[in-house]
This record gives sequence, structure tokens and C-alpha cells, in this order.
Amino acid sequence: MRRLIKGGILVDAEGEYHQDLAIEDGKIVQVGSQLAESVDTEVIDAQGLYVMPGGVDVHTHFNIDVGMARSCDDFFFGTRAAACGGTTTIVDHMGFGPPGCSLHHQLEVYHDDARGKAAVDYSFHGVIQHVDDDILQEMHGMVHEEGISSFKLYLTYKYKLSDEQVLRALRQLRQVGALATVHPENDAAIALRRRALLAAGKTAPIYHARSRPIACEAEAIGRMINLAQLADTAPLYIVHLSNGLGLEYVRLAKRAGQPVWVETCPQYLLLDEQRYLQDDGLKYILSPPLRARTEADRLWVGVADGTIDTLATDHCNFPYQQRQALSGGDFSRCPNGLPGVENRLQLLFSEGVMRGRISTSRFVQLTSANPARLFGLWPRKGSLLPGADADLVLFDPQRVTTIQHQDLHDNGDYSPYEGIACNGAPVMTLLRGQVVAKNGVFTGQAGQGRFIARQPFNHTDQGTKHG
Amino acid sequence: MRRLIKGGILVDAEGEYHQDLAIEDGKIVQVGSQLAESVDTEVIDAQGLYVMPGGVDVHTHFNIDVGMARSCDDFFFGTRAAACGGTTTIVDHMGFGPPGCSLHHQLEVYHDDARGKAAVDYSFHGVIQHVDDDILQEMHGMVHEEGISSFKLYLTYKYKLSDEQVLRALRQLRQVGALATVHPENDAAIALRRRALLAAGKTAPIYHARSRPIACEAEAIGRMINLAQLADTAPLYIVHLSNGLGLEYVRLAKRAGQPVWVETCPQYLLLDEQRYLQDDGLKYILSPPLRARTEADRLWVGVADGTIDTLATDHCNFPYQQRQALSGGDFSRCPNGLPGVENRLQLLFSEGVMRGRISTSRFVQLTSANPARLFGLWPRKGSLLPGADADLVLFDPQRVTTIQHQDLHDNGDYSPYEGIACNGAPVMTLLRGQVVAKNGVFTGQAGQGRFIARQPFNHTDQGTKHG
Amino acid sequence: MRRLIKGGILVDAEGEYHQDLAIEDGKIVQVGSQLAESVDTEVIDAQGLYVMPGGVDVHTHFNIDVGMARSCDDFFFGTRAAACGGTTTIVDHMGFGPPGCSLHHQLEVYHDDARGKAAVDYSFHGVIQHVDDDILQEMHGMVHEEGISSFKLYLTYKYKLSDEQVLRALRQLRQVGALATVHPENDAAIALRRRALLAAGKTAPIYHARSRPIACEAEAIGRMINLAQLADTAPLYIVHLSNGLGLEYVRLAKRAGQPVWVETCPQYLLLDEQRYLQDDGLKYILSPPLRARTEADRLWVGVADGTIDTLATDHCNFPYQQRQALSGGDFSRCPNGLPGVENRLQLLFSEGVMRGRISTSRFVQLTSANPARLFGLWPRKGSLLPGADADLVLFDPQRVTTIQHQDLHDNGDYSPYEGIACNGAPVMTLLRGQVVAKNGVFTGQAGQGRFIARQPFNHTDQGTKHG
Amino acid sequence: MRRLIKGGILVDAEGEYHQDLAIEDGKIVQVGSQLAESVDTEVIDAQGLYVMPGGVDVHTHFNIDVGMARSCDDFFFGTRAAACGGTTTIVDHMGFGPPGCSLHHQLEVYHDDARGKAAVDYSFHGVIQHVDDDILQEMHGMVHEEGISSFKLYLTYKYKLSDEQVLRALRQLRQVGALATVHPENDAAIALRRRALLAAGKTAPIYHARSRPIACEAEAIGRMINLAQLADTAPLYIVHLSNGLGLEYVRLAKRAGQPVWVETCPQYLLLDEQRYLQDDGLKYILSPPLRARTEADRLWVGVADGTIDTLATDHCNFPYQQRQALSGGDFSRCPNGLPGVENRLQLLFSEGVMRGRISTSRFVQLTSANPARLFGLWPRKGSLLPGADADLVLFDPQRVTTIQHQDLHDNGDYSPYEGIACNGAPVMTLLRGQVVAKNGVFTGQAGQGRFIARQPFNHTDQGTKHG
Repeated sequence: MRRLIKGGILVDAEGEYHQDLAIEDGKIVQVGSQLAESVDTEVIDAQGLYVMPGGVDVHTHFNIDVGMARSCDDFFFGTRAAACGGTTTIVDHMGFGPPGCSLHHQLEVYHDDARGKAAVDYSFHGVIQHVDDDILQEMHGMVHEEGISSFKLYLTYKYKLSDEQVLRALRQLRQVGALATVHPENDAAIALRRRALLAAGKTAPIYHARSRPIACEAEAIGRMINLAQLADTAPLYIVHLSNGLGLEYVRLAKRAGQPVWVETCPQYLLLDEQRYLQDDGLKYILSPPLRARTEADRLWVGVADGTIDTLATDHCNFPYQQRQALSGGDFSRCPNGLPGVENRLQLLFSEGVMRGRISTSRFVQLTSANPARLFGLWPRKGSLLPGADADLVLFDPQRVTTIQHQDLHDNGDYSPYEGIACNGAPVMTLLRGQVVAKNGVFTGQAGQGRFIARQPFNHTDQGTKHG
Repeated sequence: MRRLIKGGILVDAEGEYHQDLAIEDGKIVQVGSQLAESVDTEVIDAQGLYVMPGGVDVHTHFNIDVGMARSCDDFFFGTRAAACGGTTTIVDHMGFGPPGCSLHHQLEVYHDDARGKAAVDYSFHGVIQHVDDDILQEMHGMVHEEGISSFKLYLTYKYKLSDEQVLRALRQLRQVGALATVHPENDAAIALRRRALLAAGKTAPIYHARSRPIACEAEAIGRMINLAQLADTAPLYIVHLSNGLGLEYVRLAKRAGQPVWVETCPQYLLLDEQRYLQDDGLKYILSPPLRARTEADRLWVGVADGTIDTLATDHCNFPYQQRQALSGGDFSRCPNGLPGVENRLQLLFSEGVMRGRISTSRFVQLTSANPARLFGLWPRKGSLLPGADADLVLFDPQRVTTIQHQDLHDNGDYSPYEGIACNGAPVMTLLRGQVVAKNGVFTGQAGQGRFIARQPFNHTDQGTKHG
Repeated sequence: MRRLIKGGILVDAEGEYHQDLAIEDGKIVQVGSQLAESVDTEVIDAQGLYVMPGGVDVHTHFNIDVGMARSCDDFFFGTRAAACGGTTTIVDHMGFGPPGCSLHHQLEVYHDDARGKAAVDYSFHGVIQHVDDDILQEMHGMVHEEGISSFKLYLTYKYKLSDEQVLRALRQLRQVGALATVHPENDAAIALRRRALLAAGKTAPIYHARSRPIACEAEAIGRMINLAQLADTAPLYIVHLSNGLGLEYVRLAKRAGQPVWVETCPQYLLLDEQRYLQDDGLKYILSPPLRARTEADRLWVGVADGTIDTLATDHCNFPYQQRQALSGGDFSRCPNGLPGVENRLQLLFSEGVMRGRISTSRFVQLTSANPARLFGLWPRKGSLLPGADADLVLFDPQRVTTIQHQDLHDNGDYSPYEGIACNGAPVMTLLRGQVVAKNGVFTGQAGQGRFIARQPFNHTDQGTKHG
Repeated sequence: MRRLIKGGILVDAEGEYHQDLAIEDGKIVQVGSQLAESVDTEVIDAQGLYVMPGGVDVHTHFNIDVGMARSCDDFFFGTRAAACGGTTTIVDHMGFGPPGCSLHHQLEVYHDDARGKAAVDYSFHGVIQHVDDDILQEMHGMVHEEGISSFKLYLTYKYKLSDEQVLRALRQLRQVGALATVHPENDAAIALRRRALLAAGKTAPIYHARSRPIACEAEAIGRMINLAQLADTAPLYIVHLSNGLGLEYVRLAKRAGQPVWVETCPQYLLLDEQRYLQDDGLKYILSPPLRARTEADRLWVGVADGTIDTLATDHCNFPYQQRQALSGGDFSRCPNGLPGVENRLQLLFSEGVMRGRISTSRFVQLTSANPARLFGLWPRKGSLLPGADADLVLFDPQRVTTIQHQDLHDNGDYSPYEGIACNGAPVMTLLRGQVVAKNGVFTGQAGQGRFIARQPFNHTDQGTKHG
């Protein structure tokens, strides 16, 4: 069957085009003016709508077990919400496995978790829990046989890596064609502060922010940038940037030509640490924490000027009820993470495009083209080129809505964005040509999402767009 | 009579202090802990309130005749609104006089305008309409006899100055101890664009913004910075900065040690050019125009990091009805300017202090201490030092209000900030010890404001604070 | 006849290659390993040598009449010196013609000047003396029929343009596919200073520098960047950058994506204003003047980090004897300009490559590839691609020499670089396959250089290299 | 006895003054015009000379035992050289003591080393080899009883500290009023590279530079800046900066108002890594190593713009013969360090002041006033205020000399600056009023230098000058 999307404004990473787009067999087959329809062509009228590549969210934590709790969104709930928000591909971060486990161990766990459940296409980032010769050797197969071409490193939490381990891992990842992603926070500083705060009985949510101030994150970003440089200029991807000083370090590295990319998330652009002072402050416990509004101002500048490459969500959903029950109000006993996979595109569209901060093509760069390029999905995902998967989101710039959790599709009990009014909304999502969401109603099904074996990291595909 | 302000948190440019403050004969006479009260002491309970120097707004245009119209706020209405918003001193910009007139000519006009009307203290900036030997010679007397120690230069409009005139004026102003202020926009570029837009029938409010894009302003800022450097490093004050590129030019100059200061206004921090697309776009016609939101993000960074020295309003009030009547919707026939003298403190308090962008002492720096230092009013104004005028504003950080023009005290018919919710509000204003406004009610009277003969510009008083 | 350059290290804008290079009919026909030779192949042994595109010097003033004098290097002497220094193409700046003359007028004059004399290939930059409809209309033909795709604008000197003229010229140049080049200095400031210095009897060479300080140049650079932005983002090329503040302005523009490029010259990297204090200070009179050493430090940073795109010479040769005779030691009566066309490559090689500041391919970018791209000569010039003209320079990195004017080939009587020791020297220059210089001996002949009709400015050819 | 220095140009951190200076009892007692002389006044004619505070070199390693060797300059030879070069106070870095030793242990060792030998005044920096409660408690006494108000931390070498140790040490140092100084290099990266290079037989001097590239140093600088921020904003002093990226990190911190200061050394400004390719490359083995010339360009910019606060030498003298004998040419077996205590002032005067990069007062800031302020010696040292020690250096800007080791006064066998021509030379050094060196001849004696108990670190004394 042929589907024709007519009358809309196509947007990709390069610009806007008043063109039609034809779909066959789940692929984009044609882009052009006034494309022909025949008897069996299904026409979608996109008059007044933007037609863009479906969102690619490269930072989710579905079904993750963080020890004190398991997040409430499994691969079905998480991807259903993604689909309704216009995201058609997610790359989930594998959680930690048992100590000493192989890279393949967690891959199997995650394949089991996702299989039959996912409503959008998906892949996984590997996780480096420890570094030894076995792990280093396993990397090649992960990339070239399993299609896992990116791996996460932690500088804090249980499996934090030492400088030497980081150097060895980065060097090998570069060799095998994988992109290292890093959670950058200084472990020792957090531990000392946390200990002191708890000893002083300072357990309210605001002390979560005080226990990991900006310098913790900036330090780790600076460290990783330089270690990547020392590891034969290994490519590096920094996740969930929340502050302006880290942004400056990234700027310096990019200006010197170093292959470094950086992601931020809607929560760091839209929310600020005043939230921790609210009665429901527990809803906002995540790491790195929310910052002062000034940091959001700085991040917006980075979004607009191209220093920030991607927008992801770090979606990790623990219901408010669960947060309260587990923590009794103590930040140190509250699981970390925020939901948000469904709101990413809409929030950036409203605050970015509609407020004149970014163009529509910059929107596509941030939400789909750049992450697809960096993580071996492009041009199959993140583009409108003929041959690409017909993953699309249609956006109505005129639709005004207010975010309410009751309208969302995750399995939690709140949204951190509750009450925020948005200009512009996704009105239809197509996954490989099938309509999986329409006007906020999920029309797809569990299991229709496919695992995507990703390509190795390819430096020449980069030059992530920022125009 | 002695007045005692007890229990509040004093804030000046240096920090916060839990202290009382005593007033006698219109002056601050004591700051200390638990100051004594006697029988005739009037005590003001400031529990839970911030007690700060009254606002100093160094950019207003009261009663100005711009040719096509006269602004609706004369010195009474304008200063009444100022008082109610917590501002106790204004420095008004003299408008243009007849071609070739002397500096003293306009001074007399303005003295006449303000005398008996002003409800807060006031002074004037001189205006340089042309440069010749007479004008240059007149400057000394204006500064040392009349107390007018700052002069405005225009690079656009009818009385734009050439590079040579600017150089001569700056050199002399520096000599006589005056600070040059400048309206920086490139005249030729605006003229060409305006002509082309009007020729094409593009007269809607958004074309006002298109007729004077960022580069017009940035060009003139760069030019003035360098001309000031060439004029024996004359001190320079740039008014109403609206964009990030100009900010970068200022940053470079400041880092090189050049004596340059810059002002922004609430409208450039809070509003953006989307307003021109509203039905009531005419309400927002001013120059430089509102910009994309990204520019506001950049300005906020400058407010937070100390690059921006002062916040003023450029208050210039033309009622919406008048704008419509005069222009018929054509931007080029609409008088330029926005009202706002009453909302300056509250807007910065809410968006700056309460959202964690700036500290309370930085708030004082921006709204009173820095402008007072730059314009020869300090420490009489802008400080809490014993001996200073007891000009104070008491702020309640808990009070939540929504701006509505019906609650304001100017003589116009709208507020550009209508509907904006604010955290924190001025609850009392004292002018030289007298309560002139209380909870949004004006309790002063016309004529109680005095002309302040300002001191010459003093470089060593600067080092405007930014901590 | 076939020529084979064997055993050398080829260098182009992309990198180094151990390859041979074959020449036939004046063109590069092959690049590869161990290329075959036959009986009639002439082999050039390049063992230990770098083989690079011949230099492209896009800023010379041969045979120029500046009113008070005519420069001593006509097209023969100038290009002979160029050839001996490894430069195989020059783009000369037309001088001013009679007031009101057409663009074609000067083109004819310059064709006459160069014809039969030039020893290397050549073209000309047009010059905009005034702006009116006739001039604007003439531009298209100059570009598309005459092959003159760049034009010079002056902001000082007799034919300085106003902002409005600049805007009109830039807009039209962009339309017709031409690149605007600009001499940026603020005329009014220079005039005032010069007048004051001369009135005070301050005529020694150091006052030349004092009469046009950095801010004069920085102002004009900032102005032109913004005017270019206002002229529909017209492409802009800034000549002879001499200071760090101007460099920062260029950096800001480039980071914002504006099409701006900038040239510096060896004199600003190697010499400093201390020279004006020497007895022979007149030798160094040029505009902009030599600066403090700190400015050279900053320029070197810009050369290394890619902000500076090209190195040219601004060769304009007035013998020392003539300078003395005309001026009697008074800077204001000394013709402006420095010789240097022969030393450009060697100086950058020695101070840049051999001191570890830049790579060999960055050297090629600065001296040939970038200027060729910007000025419509690439890939015929500035590349080693098959099909390109076989314009080559062979550099021996081991050869140590000291610059002495007696060894040079211009028609003057001194070198500003006298006595500077250089590591590395050009040992052979080929023009379209012919050896025109060998070990400092000119082996070519007058008239063998050809006029090159240049291509229109092509934005997509840019992305001038800086790696 | 009264000494009068007449006719010179006094220079301090604030500016230049044509004044005389009177000395009594080893103190400056008067500064003024045409000071009176009496019969017993000894007059020093300073016509044409600069009279400046004696140099303060806060980074020397005299008599240090680095395990494989002991440096050849004990406190006599080292301070004799210092005196002849115009330096009148040194603060030596204590070397490591036995594992687990107390802070006082090394202090005693160093007092023994210096007593009776030093020819100029001296103090010591403590060294933190490990961090435990005993060490933390000892700090207070070291500062307040022993006058040791600064301590060195290492991030590499045998006694490198972990992040947690650094945090604990910094917090306590701040508490007790001490300044932390840090040798910043990433240990893990160096170890991995060194191992790989040695395994590959790459032992030539150039591989010393390759074993610790810029990113090693930049990483550690970024880390320390952020850890200091996390340690309650502890003051931090970074020694021997050698690269531009680290400088950028410092710039960002300073601009944000963080109390961070940074030192560079003449070797990083004057020499570059090409030296390692010379036959005598071993002469230049030190850590961090010499860098590419581009880094020196960047450092000069930092010297000129005030980002760099001090110039010290890191004098650590191992004769060339010893280097050869111990290492056999293998960089890893060559002791690290360069001599230079005698040449610091002269090199900066010649390359900085005489080449127009810095003013004479900036020279004083870098070489004496700033280090004196930072390390608790000011205003006794580093100033010309009445009451200050009469430690002076008289500089003749006209004297041209060439550095030759045979003219120097250390105990080694070479100078890394051999053959460098200098404009300007110290012609007389006074220590507390006594002439200790004159025209390159030592006229003092061992033991006349006194230990100076330094004041605690005082934040308000800072605002190190950079104008």
C-alpha cells in the first residue's frame, strides 16, 4: 500500500520544503511536488502541519532496576508514551548486571525485556561495569555482530571507573568503532557532601541538589574530555548536561576540533531547583539535579548556537507514591530519575521553535538527525531521504495544549511538566509507515517495534548539524 | 521625628544583614542591631521583608515630545508610578530642543516640566544635538554648575552624530567629568531597510523589528566602544541593550579594562518579538525592538555574570489608543517606546531573585547602587550608609501578584507586562524618610520630589558591583 | 614533455602524502606511488623536500601610484620576486583611477600594466571608488565577462565609502557573485589624531603608529562585519589584520556562522612597533601600522586555531631612499607600504611549521588553498588535484638561510626582514610545469605569466580549511 | 646609615614615579622628590635606571633529593644566583620526606638546609604527602606558629593524592589560612603512555614530551579548579602552567569569581619542544615538558591580559653531565627540572617590557608584588611602601647582554637560555639595604638571608594586580 502525505511542510536537518512524501513498504520512497495518487493510495492531509522525521530518544531507562526499586515503565509503557509524543526510536541504557558480568549478559537481559513489548523501534547502549582484557575483547563483537555501537561509562555510582580504566576503555571503543557515552559526576565530592548532609539531618529534597553541585559535574566533564583526548582522541558523548560551566568546557573542546558531543534534556531547560522547595520536591529527584535558572539560560544559548547536539530525556519513571513510600521524604532514599519521554518534542517545539530560539530544522537536528547520526542509525532514522524508514511525526504549530499527566501514556502517576502550556503538538506519529499515534491516542501495538542493529560509529557521518 | 525600620533584612550592594535602620530628618542615621526606640519613634515592622535602597531608574522619558506625539506621562504621572513601584530617583532623558539650541535651553525646559510635579527625586541627562565649539564649552558649566553630569548621544534619528562629532564630544565630556550615554543603532542600515519595507507595503508591527535587526545595534555598540577608546578612553554608558552580540562586544571591552557600562531593560529580558505577531503588536513598538527569545537568554546570562551593570526602563508611554489612531497599524507611524517605570523592581525580583538567577545584593546593584554610582548620585542614593537619603523600598518576597494595568499609576492605557505573575512585591516606598507608597497605593504628593544636582563622573567610584 | 617529481612529500590542504607527481602540458596529470618514467621524462628528485601548491598571494600592489610616489616594483619585478619566493599566482589590488571613473577603466589600466611583464599568473581585484547605479550595474560584467570576482572597499583614504554606500555595494556584490574585500580603518579618528600630532610637531615614525591605533582598525572591522550581515549576509574578506581585538570580532562572527574571512601578513606576525624607534623607522611605515608584540602573539593564536584564513603580503615597495627623500623623516609625507612578496612562504614556514605552530597542510591552506578558494582560482590553483595547473613550490626544510635584501629580486633597496634567520627555504618553483626559479635564481621570463579569469565567488567552495 | 637612591624611575605594582627613595636600617623609609642627603648618606645614582622591588621567586627546588639525584644548587648556590639576577626572596618547595612523616619533619630538614647558607631571604612551602587527621591538625600550627602558609599538593609522582584527599586537604588549608599550590598532571595517563613508549624503545628526549601531553596537564587543572570550588571555595594556586587549554580553564574560573591564581615560568614562554630534538635535548627534561610554540603564544597573551598572576622559575638544577651519566639518553632515567633562578627578571624584562608586551608595573606585579601578596609576604616584600624591607633591584633598560652560563652563579654546568640576547639587565640588587650584587658580581655573603615567617593567606590582600 502507498501512503501519501500531502500539503505539509517537510522539515529535515537541512531546511523546510513544501513537498509531498510518499511511503511504500514502510519506507519513504519519494519526496516531491504534487506526487501522484492512485486508487489505493491513502492520502494524509498535512495542510498546515510540519512533517518531520520521527523523534530519536537516545537516553531512556525502561524497566530499569536501580536496586531500591524498578522503574514503572517497561518497554511497552515507555515506548507507548514515546510513540504518542512523536518519538519512533529509542536507545535504552542497559542497567548494571551482576558484578563481573560480560557485556553480552546484559544484552540478553535487555533483548528479553524489550522483545514483544516495544511499540517503537529500539536499540540499547552497552554499559561498562569494569575493564579487563575480556571486556575489551568482547567489545568488537558487540559492535559488529550485535549492532551495539555505543557504551556507557559512569564516573560515580557503584560501577564508577578509574582514570586508567576509562583510558583503556575509550581506546578500545574507538578501535572497534563504538562511541563512549559518559555520566559525568565526581564521586568523591558527592560522597563527602552527602555524608555531611545526612549526618546533619539535612535530608529534604533541596539537599539532593546541594549534595551534587555544578562543580561535581563540570569536573567530570573536564576530566572525560581530556581523557578522551589522551585515548587517541576517542569520540565522546556526554549525557544530560545540566550546567553552563560544563558547556564551556565542551565549547573549548569543540573549537579545538575534538570529537565531543553533548546532550541535554528538557528538565534542565524547563525546570529549576526551586522545584525542590515545593511540597512535592521528591518528584524532581534526579542526577545531575535541577539547577538554578541561570544554568538553563546558558543551556538555551548552547541549544541555539549549536554547542549542544542532542536533546534526550533520560526517562526513568518512579511514581511519586513510590518515591514517598521509599524515602519518607529523605532524598538519599528516593530513587533517581524523571519521566518525560512523551513530552520531549512538544516541549522543545513550544519553547524552542515557537519562541523563536531555534529553527524547525535545528529542531529536527536536536531531536532526531543528530542522535541518529551519532548512534549509527542514520540515514535510516532521522532523515527524510528516500529509502529511510517512514518514521514520521506530524506537528501542528497552532495547537495549544497544557500538559497533564492524565493525558499521558506512561505507567507512572505524575508529570514534572504538569500545567505547562505548549504551543504546537504532535498530531500523528508513523512508525515504518504505520500510524501508531493520532491526536494523543495510541493506535499501535506492543511488539511492533523492532530492534535495530546499529552501524559502527562513523566519524565522517558526523558534523552533527547545527544551523 | 525618628523612624525605625525593625526586624527586616537589609540589603545593599554588598550583602544581606539582619539589622535595624533608623531615619532622622530624611536621612539614614543608624544601622545596627536592636536599635533603641523612644516615645516619638515611629516603628515600621519589616519582619519578613527586604529593606533595600529605593530604586534609581536612569532611563525615563517623561513628558517627551517626539514630534508625532507627546508621551502621556508627565513628571507627575511618571514619578507617581515610579514611587509605587519602589523607585525613588529617576534621571530623565531630555528630549531634543530646536535645531542648534544650547545645552542649557533644554535644561530650562525640563526644570519647568518637573518643578512642582515630581513625586520622587529627579535629575536629567543632557542631550547632544550637535557638536561645535559653543556646545563643547557649555559642557563644563552644565556639569559643575547645573549638576548635569551625563549626556546622551544618538547615532540614529534626526540628531545622529558623525564619528568626528562623537569623538569631539566624548573627549570633552571626559575632560569635564561627564559620562556619555549612547543610543546605538546604525542609521543608514535602518533607513535603507525601512524604505524597502515601506515600499513593499510591509507595515505591520513585525516589520518594525525587521527594519532594525540586531546587527544595526551591534554595529553601533562596537563603533561607540572603539570611538570611546580613541577619545582618550572616555567613559561610556550604553543604554537599552537588547542583544547578545552587543553584549559580547561589551564583554571584550570590559575584559580589556575599558570603562564601559551597559544597561538593559525589563522588556528585553521578559518579552520577545513574538509579541509583534499578536493583534495588539503596536503596543510593543520601541527601539531597539524586541528580539528573539535567544537574545533574552543571553542577556540573562549577562545579568547574572555581571557584564550588565544596570536595569532601567526607557519608560516612554504612548497609550495603545493613541498608537492605533496615529499609525493605523503602520509601524512607521507609531510612536516608539514602552511604559514600565512601575514594574522594573518587581519584574527583576520575581524573574531574577526568586528564580535563582541573581542574589538580593546583585538586585540592589542593578536597580540602584550601580546607576547611582555611575551617574553621580552615590552614596546619597543607592546605599544604606548613614548619611544617605532615607530612600527605601520594602519588598515582600512572599507576596504573589499578577500585573494588571488597572492597578498601575501611569497615565496610559495598557501594560506590556499585563498578566505576568510575579513572586515578590514592593510593599512600601520611602522617599527621604516619608512613606510615598504603600501596598500599591500612592501616599505621596506632586512636588515632593527634588532636583538632585549630580556629582561629576568619578572613575574611582565605579567598579560597579557585580557579585 | 612529461615531468615527474619523485620521492618528495606532497602536501595539500588535506595532509601529507609520500607520492610522486606527474606533469604534462603544464597540468598535474597524476599523483601516485612510483609513477612510471619513460625516455623523455624529466625527473625532478624531491627526496627530502615538500612538494606543495605554488603560493597564491592575493594582496599585492604592483606599479601602484599613490599620488606622492609610484611603487618601484612593476609587474615584472614584483612577480619575479614572487616566483623566487615560491608564489605562482598573485591577485593585485587595482589602485584608484580618476574620480568618477568606471570599474572597467582601471581594469584596462592594469591589463596594460601587467601584459608582457608578469612572470607568474595574475589577476586583479576591482576597486570601488564610489557607488552609484552605473557602478552597481557594471559589477555583473566585471565578474562574469572579465573574470574579476572581488572588489576592494576602503573606509579611509580619499575614496572612503559611507555606511550607505557600503551597504549598497555589498548587496550588489553578493548578488553578482563577487567577494567584497575591505581595508578597515576609521577615517575620522585617524584624521583627528594625525592633525593633532602634526600640529604638535610629532612627525617621527613612531607617531605614524600613534596616529592609527588598534581601535581605529577594530572599529572598522566591527562595522564591516555588521554591515555585511545587514547586506543580506554578503560574504566579506578583511585584509591585513594587525590586532587581537579585530580578531575577536571576526571570531564572534565566524562562530555565529557568518561568511567572513580574514587575512594577515608576515609583517604583523614577525615585526612590531619597536621598529619605529629605530633609526631606519621609515622603512616600516605602512597602514595599519606595526603593533605591540602582544598583538602578534594573538595573531599567531588565530593562525594556529584557524580563525585567520589566509596569509598575504600587501607588497607595496617604496625604496628607503625614496622614503627618506620624500618625507624628510616626517611619517605623514612617507609613502605607505612594505615589500615582502618574496619572503611570505619562507617566513611562515620557518616561524610556523618549523617552530611547531602549524602543520604543513595548514601552511598550504594559508598560503595557497584558502586564497585560491576564496578568490575563484580553486582547484586550478592551490591544489594538487589532477587537472590543476602544475604550479608548485619545492621546500627544503633543512636549508637554513638568513634574509638579506641583496639576495632578493624586487626592485627596491631594503627588506624589512633583513637579518632574520629562516629554517626551510623554497628551492624550486614551477609555473604551469616550467621551472621559473631554482635555488634563489630566477629562471623564468617576463610575460610568461597569464591573466587568469577568476570564477565567481562560490559559497559552497568555502569552508576554507583550517585543520 | 642612610642610603639614598636618586634620579631613577621607581616602579611598583601601581605605576612609575620619578622619585628618590631613602633607606635606613634595612627598610624603605621615604619616597619623594629630591630627598635630602646629609654627610653620612650614601647616594646611589639611579639615573636612567628602573628601581623596583626585589624579585620574589616562589617556586624553587634547592638542594632537593629526587631519589635518583640531588640537585646541585644548595641554598647558597641557589640564592647567590637569585641575588645576582635581582631576586631577593625565594620560597622553596620542600621535597618529600619519608613515607608518613609529619609536616614538621620536612620543615626541620629545610631549616637545617637553609640556615647559614642563604644569601637572600627565604621561606618554604609545605608539602602534603598524605592526608589523615594528624596531618590536618598539624596544619594550623604550621601556618600560625611556623609561618608556613602554603602547601603543595601533587596529582602525580609517588605522593599523588586522591580526589577525596585533595578535598579534605583543601578544606582544612582554607580553614587555617593557607594557600594550596598544586602540581597538576594526570598520573594514570602519564603512566600508561610512559609504559607504552618505553616498551617500544622510545626513550629519546622528545618522548618525554610525548609521555605527558597537554591534556594531562589540562585535565588536572580542570579537576583542581573544581575540587577547590567544592572544598568551600578554597583558594588555589596552580604552578608552572605550560599550555593554553589549562589557561582557558583558569580564565573561566577567574571570570566566575573563583579564587584561583596561576604561575608560569620563563621556560614555557621562551623555549619550545623543538629543543628536545637537539643533540642536547636532555638539558630540557622537566615536567610539565616544553610545548609547541603555539602554547607559548597563548601564555604570552595570558601574561599580557592578566590571567597569569606570577612568574616563577621552578629552578631545579641537574647538570647536563649528570643528566647524561644517569640517563644514558633515556628520558625516563633523567632527573627532571631546569635551572633559571638567575634569569627570570631579565628574560621577562627583555621579552615582556622591552618588546612592548607588558608595562613596567605589570612586570613588578608578575615578578614580586603578586607572589608576595599571595604568599603572605606583602607589603614587606614586593612593594616600595615606607616600612617595607629595602629589597630592590635596579634595572638598566639600555644594557644589552647575551646569556652565557659562564657568567651565571649557580652550581650547574649549563643554562637552557644560553645565547639568548637580552635588552635590559639588573645592575644592582639590594637585600634589606645591603648591596648583594652589582653588575653581575655577587657582593653578599652566605647566611645573610633570613627566614621569613609568612602571614596567613589573606583573601582581601589579593586582587593581584594586572594593569
